[in-house]
Amino acid sequence: MAPTKQKITFGIMLQGAGGHMHAWRHPSSPSDASVNIDFFKKTALRAEAAGIAFGFVADGLYINEKSIPHFLNRFEPLTVLSALASVTSRIGLAGTVSTSYSDPFTVARQFASLDLLSGGRAGWNAVTTPLEGTARNYSRQHPEHALRYEIAQEYLDVVKGLWDSWDDDAFLRNQQTGQFFDPAKLHRLDHKGRFFQVEGPLNIQRSPQGQPVVFQAGSSDAGIGLAGRHADAVFTHAVSVEENKTFLTRVKHAAVAHGRSADDVKIFPGIGPIVGRTQEEAEEKYRVICNLITIEDALAYLGRFFDHHDFSQYDLDAPFPELGDIGKNSFRSTTDRIKQVAREKGQTLREVALAAASPRDQFIGTPDTIADELIRWFDAGAADGFILGFPVIAEGLDDFVTLVLPILEQRGYFDGTLKATTLRENLGLPYRASRYSQEAVPEKARA
Amino acid sequence: MAPTKQKITFGIMLQGAGGHMHAWRHPSSPSDASVNIDFFKKTALRAEAAGIAFGFVADGLYINEKSIPHFLNRFEPLTVLSALASVTSRIGLAGTVSTSYSDPFTVARQFASLDLLSGGRAGWNAVTTPLEGTARNYSRQHPEHALRYEIAQEYLDVVKGLWDSWDDDAFLRNQQTGQFFDPAKLHRLDHKGRFFQVEGPLNIQRSPQGQPVVFQAGSSDAGIGLAGRHADAVFTHAVSVEENKTFLTRVKHAAVAHGRSADDVKIFPGIGPIVGRTQEEAEEKYRVICNLITIEDALAYLGRFFDHHDFSQYDLDAPFPELGDIGKNSFRSTTDRIKQVAREKGQTLREVALAAASPRDQFIGTPDTIADELIRWFDAGAADGFILGFPVIAEGLDDFVTLVLPILEQRGYFDGTLKATTLRENLGLPYRASRYSQEAVPEKARA
Repeated sequence: MAPTKQKITFGIMLQGAGGHMHAWRHPSSPSDASVNIDFFKKTALRAEAAGIAFGFVADGLYINEKSIPHFLNRFEPLTVLSALASVTSRIGLAGTVSTSYSDPFTVARQFASLDLLSGGRAGWNAVTTPLEGTARNYSRQHPEHALRYEIAQEYLDVVKGLWDSWDDDAFLRNQQTGQFFDPAKLHRLDHKGRFFQVEGPLNIQRSPQGQPVVFQAGSSDAGIGLAGRHADAVFTHAVSVEENKTFLTRVKHAAVAHGRSADDVKIFPGIGPIVGRTQEEAEEKYRVICNLITIEDALAYLGRFFDHHDFSQYDLDAPFPELGDIGKNSFRSTTDRIKQVAREKGQTLREVALAAASPRDQFIGTPDTIADELIRWFDAGAADGFILGFPVIAEGLDDFVTLVLPILEQRGYFDGTLKATTLRENLGLPYRASRYSQEAVPEKARA
Repeated sequence: MAPTKQKITFGIMLQGAGGHMHAWRHPSSPSDASVNIDFFKKTALRAEAAGIAFGFVADGLYINEKSIPHFLNRFEPLTVLSALASVTSRIGLAGTVSTSYSDPFTVARQFASLDLLSGGRAGWNAVTTPLEGTARNYSRQHPEHALRYEIAQEYLDVVKGLWDSWDDDAFLRNQQTGQFFDPAKLHRLDHKGRFFQVEGPLNIQRSPQGQPVVFQAGSSDAGIGLAGRHADAVFTHAVSVEENKTFLTRVKHAAVAHGRSADDVKIFPGIGPIVGRTQEEAEEKYRVICNLITIEDALAYLGRFFDHHDFSQYDLDAPFPELGDIGKNSFRSTTDRIKQVAREKGQTLREVALAAASPRDQFIGTPDTIADELIRWFDAGAADGFILGFPVIAEGLDDFVTLVLPILEQRGYFDGTLKATTLRENLGLPYRASRYSQEAVPEKARA
């Protein structure tokens, strides 16, 4: 059979009323969207029906009174994803949990449990947690950037080891003989590392997709290193076709360097499309979104990326201030980019803050121009798919599903139906075989 | 209005195919019940329709090849309870999470999230984790019994403090003015204790029941101390009317000593009823259950309570061996009881092991004798309700719902319909007001 043409895969961010910090004020949004389970269910069902492969719940473990509204009050990812599992049947369910502020045994279990109860649809976005304030909620010190990634590498080794505790056919469940499992198919991990000592085994079997899909979202060198070794999918910024192509190539090379195939890791730039039937209509929708915010809110939001730095102390219309090391240990790839763009464009603080609060996405336009642009990125090898971070979900998803996806489908770049019931399969990733089943092959060949 | 007669409240253990270690072999059970989400959903829905107030998912964080079948392979409580929240609407959803092997910020969030997405139906069974092996899955030392309870006291202080981070009316969500919340109604915890330093606030609002219901399940003096200060509900062994009445009185006194009302904590002995239309039919059902097990399985199961002690080294028909300190730091109240009964009755190891594996419950009989017995316990003040740990859920729940509950309802001791949508209300517990709203009253009165 001839290989079918590769398709563009989409995920959708489930983040309150939307990615814009004041999406809750938008007329199309329920103002309590970030804790409205019915809104989550409705959104997930709509996305699933449209062929969007996964919902993605980001997370944070520290807030203060300056945090943006949907961070102040939101569902915890594992619980809300589990609740969504019961009302959906094909859409993947991915969420963020930090490797710096959790225990691998617990996290391995919770994702394995979500994976099993959803029939193989779980995804874990393993983040190292940039916000220093988090440490003050967890009775400990915040590890610096490099150390966080060293911890994360070992953490992922442990979790993946635990996920292979039981071979696929370990549970016999023979009601007649009373044999529940085959002891030869149980593997204790016995991990003794620099950061973790975990004996195992995990107390839950593997799922229909083998293991949950592992997402990774850091774009620094350390992040790419982690992705090359461990990630099935990478969530990154959409900067430009050229830069993203370079990034994609680097991640795939990193995977190959770790003995994996370039196809084993899929790259998803995050985009925030705004669709209008005309360019003017799209621009008008963007203007409505920009007008949801005041400059005070914008400054507070900007500060969040820079360790909650107080930007109200500076002249709004002077050039963006020199910040020294502030933000170096936080959202590093984001803050580096903000500083670089400010320098290159000679932006004032006001301009930087407003742009950060309501960034002008590259995908603002008519259905045709957006479809063209998505195809251009995809064909150029800058993306395997996209994560849709609509500034306002209620309006954005509706427009995208009814106006853009049919064009992509017509052009053969998109499948409007999720073909599989596991996330791996819907992402074009193979079933994740157990490490023991793979190792067993050469031994058998020798016998 | 005249006070309505107190009713008996029931919860049901959701533990694989049932409480018996080989329930999975029973002809009425799906053999994969412990990881069968459809079985969980069906059971929860059946219980809810019958007026059972909550489902209860116990937990453990360490297994080895000798563990009982449904411990080897099971869902993690928070994920499965969240999945059940989406298919049910009134039944409470309670689960075990250890205070010795988790972070209070994470656990506060996950239960608050479950509570909010279920509309106020979450319950947390805070346990200190008896199994020493757990430490080997969590890169740390196992704290001994007394220390575990000191940690638990502070842990619960932190969690309850975090749950009050936001006043009930803190979120204004005024789409016109852009005011999302009232900063005066946000409370940072700033906890600096012996074991935990947690700044807060929590990033989720309170639920329709104020705070999740806190269960406690240890029966030692330290456990009663914890219950008196923190528990809304206590899960205990059903020993006898006299002993349970004494226990209930001690817990309620402990609550009063902490400035609470005796009605603020409800006591639930765990029972495992087996119902037959005749006594003979009930005994036959019990015999079928006893025959699911071999003596080897029974010895391994007994060992679990004694730090996985290997009982196969002893003569089966000699008196139960002297074990010294083995089991002292584990399931202490259980092992003390086993040793005491063995001594009093002069039991052999075989007798102790078989009795531990298929304990003869006090509630084996006809619908009338079981209903009489439940009423006797309740009227004597030995219980506020019961947690139903059916040896085999599929058969046991069906019998209990169709045969026993109608009798209790007819006699005015049970309500076959859950009246409320929050767990607190269905348990007869008041809405849990925020600590800040209570403290505010005297201050206002002074002004």
